[in-house]
Amino acid sequence: MSVWNGPKRLLFGTPLDSARLGETLLPKRLALPIFCSDPLSSVAYATEEILLILALGGVALLHLAWYAAAAIVLLLVVVIASYRQTCHAYPGGGGAYVVSAENLGPTAALTAASALLVDYVLTVAVSVVSGVAAITSAVPALDRYQVLLSVVFVTVLTLLNLRGVRESGRLFAIPTYGFIAAIYLMFGYAAVRLAWGATIRAESATLPIHATGSFTGLALVLLAMRAFASGCTALTGVEAISNGVPAFQEPKARNAATTLAVMGLFSVTMFVGITVLAMAYRVHVAADPTELGLAPGTAMPTALAQIARATFGDANLLFYLVQTFTAGVLILAANTAFNGFPMLASILARDRYAPRQLHNRGDRLVYSNGVVLLALAAIGLIVAFDAQLTRIIQLYIIGVFVSFTLSQAGMVRHWRTALATESEPAPRRRMRRSQAINAVGATLTALVLVIVLITKFTHGAWLVIIAMPLLFAGMKGVRRHYDQVAKIVAVPDGARPHVPPRNHVLVLVSSVHAPTLKALGVAQALHPTSVTAMSVAADAADAEALRTQWDQHVPDVALEILHSPYREVVGPVLARIRQETAADPTAMVSVVIPEYVVDHWWEQPLHNQNALRLKARLLFAPEVTVIDVPFRLAAPAPPQADVPVP
Amino acid sequence: MSVWNGPKRLLFGTPLDSARLGETLLPKRLALPIFCSDPLSSVAYATEEILLILALGGVALLHLAWYAAAAIVLLLVVVIASYRQTCHAYPGGGGAYVVSAENLGPTAALTAASALLVDYVLTVAVSVVSGVAAITSAVPALDRYQVLLSVVFVTVLTLLNLRGVRESGRLFAIPTYGFIAAIYLMFGYAAVRLAWGATIRAESATLPIHATGSFTGLALVLLAMRAFASGCTALTGVEAISNGVPAFQEPKARNAATTLAVMGLFSVTMFVGITVLAMAYRVHVAADPTELGLAPGTAMPTALAQIARATFGDANLLFYLVQTFTAGVLILAANTAFNGFPMLASILARDRYAPRQLHNRGDRLVYSNGVVLLALAAIGLIVAFDAQLTRIIQLYIIGVFVSFTLSQAGMVRHWRTALATESEPAPRRRMRRSQAINAVGATLTALVLVIVLITKFTHGAWLVIIAMPLLFAGMKGVRRHYDQVAKIVAVPDGARPHVPPRNHVLVLVSSVHAPTLKALGVAQALHPTSVTAMSVAADAADAEALRTQWDQHVPDVALEILHSPYREVVGPVLARIRQETAADPTAMVSVVIPEYVVDHWWEQPLHNQNALRLKARLLFAPEVTVIDVPFRLAAPAPPQADVPVP
Repeated sequence: MSVWNGPKRLLFGTPLDSARLGETLLPKRLALPIFCSDPLSSVAYATEEILLILALGGVALLHLAWYAAAAIVLLLVVVIASYRQTCHAYPGGGGAYVVSAENLGPTAALTAASALLVDYVLTVAVSVVSGVAAITSAVPALDRYQVLLSVVFVTVLTLLNLRGVRESGRLFAIPTYGFIAAIYLMFGYAAVRLAWGATIRAESATLPIHATGSFTGLALVLLAMRAFASGCTALTGVEAISNGVPAFQEPKARNAATTLAVMGLFSVTMFVGITVLAMAYRVHVAADPTELGLAPGTAMPTALAQIARATFGDANLLFYLVQTFTAGVLILAANTAFNGFPMLASILARDRYAPRQLHNRGDRLVYSNGVVLLALAAIGLIVAFDAQLTRIIQLYIIGVFVSFTLSQAGMVRHWRTALATESEPAPRRRMRRSQAINAVGATLTALVLVIVLITKFTHGAWLVIIAMPLLFAGMKGVRRHYDQVAKIVAVPDGARPHVPPRNHVLVLVSSVHAPTLKALGVAQALHPTSVTAMSVAADAADAEALRTQWDQHVPDVALEILHSPYREVVGPVLARIRQETAADPTAMVSVVIPEYVVDHWWEQPLHNQNALRLKARLLFAPEVTVIDVPFRLAAPAPPQADVPVP
Repeated sequence: MSVWNGPKRLLFGTPLDSARLGETLLPKRLALPIFCSDPLSSVAYATEEILLILALGGVALLHLAWYAAAAIVLLLVVVIASYRQTCHAYPGGGGAYVVSAENLGPTAALTAASALLVDYVLTVAVSVVSGVAAITSAVPALDRYQVLLSVVFVTVLTLLNLRGVRESGRLFAIPTYGFIAAIYLMFGYAAVRLAWGATIRAESATLPIHATGSFTGLALVLLAMRAFASGCTALTGVEAISNGVPAFQEPKARNAATTLAVMGLFSVTMFVGITVLAMAYRVHVAADPTELGLAPGTAMPTALAQIARATFGDANLLFYLVQTFTAGVLILAANTAFNGFPMLASILARDRYAPRQLHNRGDRLVYSNGVVLLALAAIGLIVAFDAQLTRIIQLYIIGVFVSFTLSQAGMVRHWRTALATESEPAPRRRMRRSQAINAVGATLTALVLVIVLITKFTHGAWLVIIAMPLLFAGMKGVRRHYDQVAKIVAVPDGARPHVPPRNHVLVLVSSVHAPTLKALGVAQALHPTSVTAMSVAADAADAEALRTQWDQHVPDVALEILHSPYREVVGPVLARIRQETAADPTAMVSVVIPEYVVDHWWEQPLHNQNALRLKARLLFAPEVTVIDVPFRLAAPAPPQADVPVP
């Protein structure tokens, strides 16, 4: 019964048996909100991002949004089709890292992994901050608490994820499906009104847009490309399902591919619908209020908020419904990362590119360490940037398209390898078809990556460009360390355990009481060559009292009292131990340390501090074996001591 | 060689031998700045506090400051004389707690201890914040960094104190003696100018003071008493020397008493001088700028700053000199607490009212734990109150006078006990004289305590009134816990160690490498009844590979492979251990856990996580002994394995 059980169970639930992992597998209807909240929610702002860029050229250029949107829809369809192939080919999951590792080599794999890791952290940070921004747009009084609210939401998401995937799934389903339903409701409402001949305009339709320059020729093309690149934010998170295939119920690959297709359907229809309404309502957005002729610092509602308000008119409840579900699904978009990151970290750990403990599941059969690591990184980012992440929202497109490109390129080679060994015509046809899809996808995303790099470089891509190589170097360093360790600990053929010929046991005692007697009993049960008790005393009076008691209870064990006038324990004890090892270098020296075990966490600081410090220092005396004898402080005392029968 | 040695040595210096503690004892000239910076610095604002209260009644009442000042000087002299007796009677140190414990019983002692602990924390917080306020008054641009600066200063003080008292003493001497010198310089300068007939006025002399009410009769008396109580801030910290007598060089008691007298001389002269100048220059201060007819939010310089500026006129350098040393000595006033708190905590721990590790000295022969605890509490207070502590500056007078009263009352009883056994006339005369001084002191401070309680109660004394009982209850709780533990661990007469008849050893292995072989060697050196190795494998392939290697190197030791499909380690291992204890309840079960020891701190997270988690859980299986076998990860590998000579 751990002292932590009370609060831990309250927060996380009871530890699950490994055998119950089967129960935590997901049906499609729960997998959609868990893995797809990121791509589904990004349609909430993708259209706006396109319009924001085009607005630099004034109202006249807004019509280019149609072309950008069309290109994005095409890209979305291709990428989703491509990832469906990955789901089938890699039912063990892994996404860009696994595919690159298997097909393109370790450098490409680590590049993909670095990109993905940065992406996941940015996803959490940006999604939560966007969701909080949606809230503070509705409730401006909360504006000064943006950082605090963001951190709170990240913490809540962390706790939910630590409780376990399946239970989180049920909670996450509500905002995701609610968002989809609300958006479709909005489409339906708008369709009915427009069919009845209403002319609906957004509140910003009448605002002019001051162009920041005139764009013709090459500049126009570049602007259009920038707008397209910005809109590609709609694709972020598509990869998550292929990463999480193992979490689906059987048949895993097919269910994952189907869910991906369903997500694609929702994403495309919502994106197209929002874009159509934005153009029809003549939504005008700009990065700065002054570009719309407004006073500096005026709050500008999001494009989606304007569409919702214009559609529902005076039906304010429905407007708040849309905003609420939008905020909810934005915050949950972060959850896509909470599934992807720990799983990726686990795989990296398996390949020894990351600390080993990221590879194991915790009490709730969740990769707890990975979840916590992600949360800490995201919180650090949010606090460091003071929750002003709206410009960095664009940066994680770079990493996204790096991993898209590497993943699909890897798939192309995967099919090539498979074709080399497959001779049946029907499978060959299927493989060629898949390969073609992946090839088209890889080419397109590579193109977009170039566009994104060109257009975003001057707009602060530095964060990603610094972080990715750092992670890359870090992971290579971890691998190098583990490889070195493997060399050090390798045993030559025929090696056998070395059994030390003698064992000198030193027992650390403070006074004569039950824990001491227990420790002495344990020491003697080890059949040692010699047993010596050692104690620290500050003055002669203390020493005298101890010795008197000692002779009464344990006359047959030698007691050495180390003189330490200022009650310093660790130094004299270490010196005595060193004496022992020096006196008999080929023997083993064991130090028996009694340790109190308390029932309540608040009692912890009251005991064992010397023991802890001593143990920490003894770790660096590798010829010394440390033996912990726990003594449970609970009444009544168990029979540790023998009292002779009178 | 601990991985922490690098940074630790850089910050704190090399660990000191207990034997060198004698070198860290203080001569009087260094003890003054260390123990007396608090009382010496409080004269910087005591006069201002008196004037602030009297200003409530308008300019007409300012003359009452003379009477308040006179009363305070009288009190100061009496209290200092009283504490000189304490220095002689208690050369082991301890102040109010020790004196109360010995003479008035545990309840009075804990009350005094609670008051002192709260005081020390408030001293650090208030002093540092006042010092920072002095700085930001000179450099207004730093105003928004008040909290950060305060925390930085607390941290710097903490590090200096962790380095060791004597070295800190040299650093602290400069601001303290500089402050005294600057103030006397200011007195001399003023005296010369006034002697030459100059009329010097403070910059606020022309400002009116809007009285907040008319004070006559009882109201006038109460106001005067409030002013006096506020001015009693000049006495804070007088107790510190009596607490720190053991830190003086021999003869400890006499040196401490002398230093106290010298401090009294400086304090009284500086306080009187500043008060005289404040009245002569007609310094007007008020809590709010509007009371002086100024615009709200106008910065109001401190009374001392006004005096310095008026004195030095255009000689600005000397003005900044005074301000700098004032700020410095205010911040160092916090240091009085850094000496008093850990020493008091050590004594409380010795009496089992506080966690035991506060009783021991750390590497630099400083009570490191106490220093860190104080720093954390002060930082918490500063951050929680957003560095706006100027009103709470008055609160710690309550605790100060509680401890003054209890201490001197205890001394009165101490002398009564001594007189009962002393028959020689000369010593009896001295004792009666001391007793009389202490009695007068106790009466006066009790009176002041009543005044302070009455006048301060409505002004936010709640912090102290909540904190003290909490600490009181906490300390009683700690004592109760330790008493309970003592009962649990007590051994009856004739008890002997219980030696378990059999020892079953389980060795945790992950694969066959050097640490495993070393652990197996250690296990066999314990001459156990049985040795079994246990390992966790996720699937049959892993298990097969392990077994093959095992049979090659360690065929004579049984290997059990625990099946854990999701790589969870702790659960299956615990289950196996419980199996062993259930199978043979009277035997001992030992679990041998190999542990990697790395050379660099950044490598720590890469290893041992399972071992740590397992060890933590095993603490709660008290019948299990945990055996740590460290393996040092440094090339070349030491001979842990025997390779048979071909």
